[in-house]
Amino acid sequence: MSLAEKAAQLGSVNADKLLDEDGNLDESALEEHLSDGVGHLTRIGGEGSLPPTEAARVTNEIQTYLREETRLGVPAIPHEECLSGYMGPEGTTFPQSIGLASTWDPDLVEEITGTIRTQLEAIGTKHALSPVLDVARDLRWGRVEETFGEDPYLVAAMACGYVEGLQGDGDGISATLKHFAGHSVGEGGKNRSSVEIGRRELRETHLFPFEAAVRTANAESVMNAYHDIDGIPCASDEWLLTDVLRGEWGFDGTVVSDYYSVEFLRSEHGIAADEEEAGVMALEAGIDVELPYTDCYGDHLVEAVEAGRLSEEAVDTAVRRVLSAKARKGVLDDSTVDAEAASEPFGTEAAEELTARAARESMTLLKNEDDLLPLVGEEIDSIAVIGPKADDAQELMGDYAYPAHYPEEEVELDATTPLDAIDARGAEFGFDVAFDQGCTTTGPATGRFDAAADAAADADVAVAFVGARSAVDFSESDRERVNMPSVATSGEGCDVTDLGLPGVQQDLVDRLNETETPLVVVVVSGKPHSIEKIAEEVPAVLQAWLPGERGGEGIASVLFGEHNPGGHLPVSVPRTVGQLPVHYSRKPNSANEEHVYVGSDPLYPFGHGLSYTDFEYREFALSADELAPAGTITAEVTVENTGDRAGHDVVQLYASADNPSQARPVQELVGFRRVSVEAGEARRVEFEVDASQLAFYDRDFDLTVEEGPYEFRVGHSASDIAASAPFEVTGTKEVPSTGRTYFAETNVADAE
Amino acid sequence: MSLAEKAAQLGSVNADKLLDEDGNLDESALEEHLSDGVGHLTRIGGEGSLPPTEAARVTNEIQTYLREETRLGVPAIPHEECLSGYMGPEGTTFPQSIGLASTWDPDLVEEITGTIRTQLEAIGTKHALSPVLDVARDLRWGRVEETFGEDPYLVAAMACGYVEGLQGDGDGISATLKHFAGHSVGEGGKNRSSVEIGRRELRETHLFPFEAAVRTANAESVMNAYHDIDGIPCASDEWLLTDVLRGEWGFDGTVVSDYYSVEFLRSEHGIAADEEEAGVMALEAGIDVELPYTDCYGDHLVEAVEAGRLSEEAVDTAVRRVLSAKARKGVLDDSTVDAEAASEPFGTEAAEELTARAARESMTLLKNEDDLLPLVGEEIDSIAVIGPKADDAQELMGDYAYPAHYPEEEVELDATTPLDAIDARGAEFGFDVAFDQGCTTTGPATGRFDAAADAAADADVAVAFVGARSAVDFSESDRERVNMPSVATSGEGCDVTDLGLPGVQQDLVDRLNETETPLVVVVVSGKPHSIEKIAEEVPAVLQAWLPGERGGEGIASVLFGEHNPGGHLPVSVPRTVGQLPVHYSRKPNSANEEHVYVGSDPLYPFGHGLSYTDFEYREFALSADELAPAGTITAEVTVENTGDRAGHDVVQLYASADNPSQARPVQELVGFRRVSVEAGEARRVEFEVDASQLAFYDRDFDLTVEEGPYEFRVGHSASDIAASAPFEVTGTKEVPSTGRTYFAETNVADAE
Repeated sequence: MSLAEKAAQLGSVNADKLLDEDGNLDESALEEHLSDGVGHLTRIGGEGSLPPTEAARVTNEIQTYLREETRLGVPAIPHEECLSGYMGPEGTTFPQSIGLASTWDPDLVEEITGTIRTQLEAIGTKHALSPVLDVARDLRWGRVEETFGEDPYLVAAMACGYVEGLQGDGDGISATLKHFAGHSVGEGGKNRSSVEIGRRELRETHLFPFEAAVRTANAESVMNAYHDIDGIPCASDEWLLTDVLRGEWGFDGTVVSDYYSVEFLRSEHGIAADEEEAGVMALEAGIDVELPYTDCYGDHLVEAVEAGRLSEEAVDTAVRRVLSAKARKGVLDDSTVDAEAASEPFGTEAAEELTARAARESMTLLKNEDDLLPLVGEEIDSIAVIGPKADDAQELMGDYAYPAHYPEEEVELDATTPLDAIDARGAEFGFDVAFDQGCTTTGPATGRFDAAADAAADADVAVAFVGARSAVDFSESDRERVNMPSVATSGEGCDVTDLGLPGVQQDLVDRLNETETPLVVVVVSGKPHSIEKIAEEVPAVLQAWLPGERGGEGIASVLFGEHNPGGHLPVSVPRTVGQLPVHYSRKPNSANEEHVYVGSDPLYPFGHGLSYTDFEYREFALSADELAPAGTITAEVTVENTGDRAGHDVVQLYASADNPSQARPVQELVGFRRVSVEAGEARRVEFEVDASQLAFYDRDFDLTVEEGPYEFRVGHSASDIAASAPFEVTGTKEVPSTGRTYFAETNVADAE
Repeated sequence: MSLAEKAAQLGSVNADKLLDEDGNLDESALEEHLSDGVGHLTRIGGEGSLPPTEAARVTNEIQTYLREETRLGVPAIPHEECLSGYMGPEGTTFPQSIGLASTWDPDLVEEITGTIRTQLEAIGTKHALSPVLDVARDLRWGRVEETFGEDPYLVAAMACGYVEGLQGDGDGISATLKHFAGHSVGEGGKNRSSVEIGRRELRETHLFPFEAAVRTANAESVMNAYHDIDGIPCASDEWLLTDVLRGEWGFDGTVVSDYYSVEFLRSEHGIAADEEEAGVMALEAGIDVELPYTDCYGDHLVEAVEAGRLSEEAVDTAVRRVLSAKARKGVLDDSTVDAEAASEPFGTEAAEELTARAARESMTLLKNEDDLLPLVGEEIDSIAVIGPKADDAQELMGDYAYPAHYPEEEVELDATTPLDAIDARGAEFGFDVAFDQGCTTTGPATGRFDAAADAAADADVAVAFVGARSAVDFSESDRERVNMPSVATSGEGCDVTDLGLPGVQQDLVDRLNETETPLVVVVVSGKPHSIEKIAEEVPAVLQAWLPGERGGEGIASVLFGEHNPGGHLPVSVPRTVGQLPVHYSRKPNSANEEHVYVGSDPLYPFGHGLSYTDFEYREFALSADELAPAGTITAEVTVENTGDRAGHDVVQLYASADNPSQARPVQELVGFRRVSVEAGEARRVEFEVDASQLAFYDRDFDLTVEEGPYEFRVGHSASDIAASAPFEVTGTKEVPSTGRTYFAETNVADAE
């Protein structure tokens, strides 16, 4: 391979450069951008806004060009975005990650990404830029919705399910773990802001999910994060991208750059004088492929090598990884797909049912005073449906969903809004449905408050759909151009300073709550809001997250009791933004120190979620009262459904060290199990915990299991602990690099 | 020395244990607590609430007992608190540190602590637990008022002035640098919360002032902080307390524990199983003296040595330091003072004039539309003085002032409130003064709003005194017992989630602003508030900080133009709490990323402060366009007073690296000079900057001056840059451990 051909393998070309305005392949662009070959193809279907058959056809043409018209004949790895579903035309939109996390069901996530995989495979994609493994600690951050919440263990478990579904047995779509690392804790909660954390916090909180997904799910790609950690931009951090990722964890896939992040070494961080220096820095640190298109790599790398400013070995190493990935994905053998059949996996009944199921299982019931819910259709004459989130399909989706990312495309959404779903039940049970939007998500108060309040007053029950709109950060002119009614206050680049409901929605709820009509508040948002007043005054509150294209169906099925809600919060909800951080696993000094007036407890704790039935825990027992530092111990508990209907519970197992050698979290999740229990029945849930799950990084940064007293706790949430049991770790032992166990084994059996 | 006698030198005994209820020395307590000697005596005057002559007499008696009745005859080091003045009866209360920082005048601070020193010396004190060198970055923290602001350079400069005044030529009072280190950035802004920062941020931001004060001001003591950094509690951090402090910086004084922090290793951090383990950990890490009284040291250390769990050498090392300190302070030669003369330095005219001067020089004028200020006494018929901070002496003082710390003592305050001072001017000029409190600082709205608004409406001008009450964190029952009218929202343990004006004060201001009467808002608070609405709507805003016992005089002298304000903000003021952090020296990615609706700019920038005259900068020039990595460079600027009255300006010099090898602050203060300029005159200000001032910690954590393009900027604030000048550092060089220059040399001459 010539140096230029090698460099070409480390870059990408994006759809906009290859397609004309009508979405047709521009033949001259092939010559211009692909004559030396290319590493990746960037979002042909998604950025190109091509329907599946077109996406497949265009991809085939590009691959054929690469195979037949370039000297080496090496096709590319086409990649797409797919966080909550393939982010292109006709892709099924599933609930955004934060909602999936609320199911505490990695198997469901695996099933979802198995479906996403079939859609991506059909259009010729080989690689996807998901999942997000960032651990959400600062809820101001717009990308909280993209995460699996605040806890490293839960994030890791859900992410591994995600990767396994997407990658299959290695013949599926390469998953990309992002954003490596610590992207969730930029100062100010701002995207791309500096991250100021120590290395122990970095490893124990933020690297844990990545390590688990590399080691146990064999993730094939990793994407660097935008920010700097303690002054070192991740894109230039050899320690992180090479020493830890490859050296310690044995990662052998490709590291791809977050879009534009190589160039940001120059233009944003200022540490590179020009594109070449940025490219050299990133490559030497360990970024194999520059995305979304070749900018600082390509010719700049060629020049750097020729001038002696970069070793050709560094280029070769990265090229070898890219070509290995191509071999592994079968690109070298067969890079085209059956374009005619490309639309088959799209819009299937199974996909629709799966996204509807995911939506209903993500529903998290926060409050239900006097069993206001479920509503009994037969007993209702009229319902008032109010609020900006009630009848806008786009309001159900996260920013990494095709319509939110491309509002200018005026995509016609095939989606079920809450109003649609409630109307359907009105027709079934014969009740009237009155609807008033009341306000937009972020707009000012209008005369509609009166109409909304009147509608509520006239109904048997009122349901207010409120929350934040998600989108990528559009400029004001963009918003005007696409007639976007609200400012986005969630999504990438949409970081906020306040966690209350945006705009005048709190006032709308207050107004509705002044009526005599019982009120249900449904929060449709990619983040939880600091709704202390609503939590105090409104009888029922349901957190519906961003439930995707069948989200309205999922919400209605819970409101009307067709589905018994089983979602549990993957994040602690602060009482007010100034209380942050409030995650449950703070160290004792942070957890116990109080703010004036506000105290230290969150509004709702991590793990909280109500059901229409009741679960009781009994006979919590350990298999032993001692644990060898390389041994395992089993904790068991009986979960009894003491109510009168079947339901799902999430049993949460926490560990706490009583006297560790350094300050440690007050408790940490070490196991969980979502379990289905019939009314009046009981099941025995067993957790086998490996001692290495208790390990932490000692003063020398060795991962060590430490002797001493510990306890396990089983809880309905991090704050609602039902029972605890002490045990002793009998020795101190460093965990060998390949000897770490990341997850507890769980088993469920009928209780005796 | 016996082991018990050695251990005794590492502990302390506090006033409560030695004095009976009437403040008389309890002879049996001497025997009980002091028979083996003792290291320190804790706050005999302050905690004992003894007037100076009594404090001196009791201290003399204890010292005499130690000298004459113990085997070794070694007297103690009596210590006191004195942050804003001796914190005991009759101590002069100066403006709280944040106000002193606003003067940007280290010489003034040195003069103040020289006065504090005379008061402490008179009562037999040898050691003081001040100053605070924490770098304020999270304004939720209650102790922001105790700091010199957000900038390491400014903090260092003011702290060195503080130490030099207190210690004199080494024969004065030992200063204690606290809280070592990073106390200001506990997560959530909560006191004692975990600190999650990396080592580069720790060194560059938080350790810099300590290093400067150790190296250049020869500070004789350091106090550890309460929290953990990345899991390691400071009280157990040998790297911090020994390797860095003594090994790198050559510190040879004593390290004392923050009160109770040794015991907190057990009860708060949970890393020690019992008192002995806590004591051993702390001693081995490098804490020489346990304060406020012997708890985990003393007998526990004796037992640990006897059982082989602690080396006697570790004890000996600490004892040697304590005895060296006693020798240095002359305690071994002459430990008593003239009790009859002890009251002489208290309440002197010079002390009163000095605190009044400090108060007026700390006044920071934030806004002055249409030159509403200064008020012209002769032209006014009536003034309405409104607000909870207008006539309460205690509201003028920080929590580390005697009355705030001991409200239960019902101290009669000798202080001038703003109302007192305005009344005096009313008498002088013949205008009427109407007063209405309107509300308390944190209480609910009462019927007083109407009366306050009426008073304002009837007056020529209204002045609203609003802000936060400072106190240490009292329980509610304590507050009831002492009839404390408001919750404290500033001060130690009083950390908040909101930065607006507490209680209903914003509503009060809104109400006053509805009248036709011109309104001046004076914020009397230990922190700046997020007063965006006031900044937009009210014509004049003066930040008065916590100006001390003559604070009312200082405020009035500025309102009436007797003093031309020259204070400049030592902290950036956020628009809302959710915007934090907003300090000016963020890295480019943090400084430029924006929050939805709020943007990235603070409400008022660091360094901002208006005058009744105007200053212009011209002829900014460097002595060279190149700087050797071990050389110096001079920047000069002419400051012209283009207005019609004399005034003080603060010339601020910032440095910025154009292309550093890692992400660096957008700019950093490297020099400042407060300068007095007559109307129509001009002065030439010269800064000699050493290359080592540009150094930062490279990827190997070596402090390095790096070659490349830089620029200096001269500004009226961090955001209002008047001119900039580029230069080139010609080489890269590690800074030798004793070769660092901390401060620019400044000179001022009449301009040609």
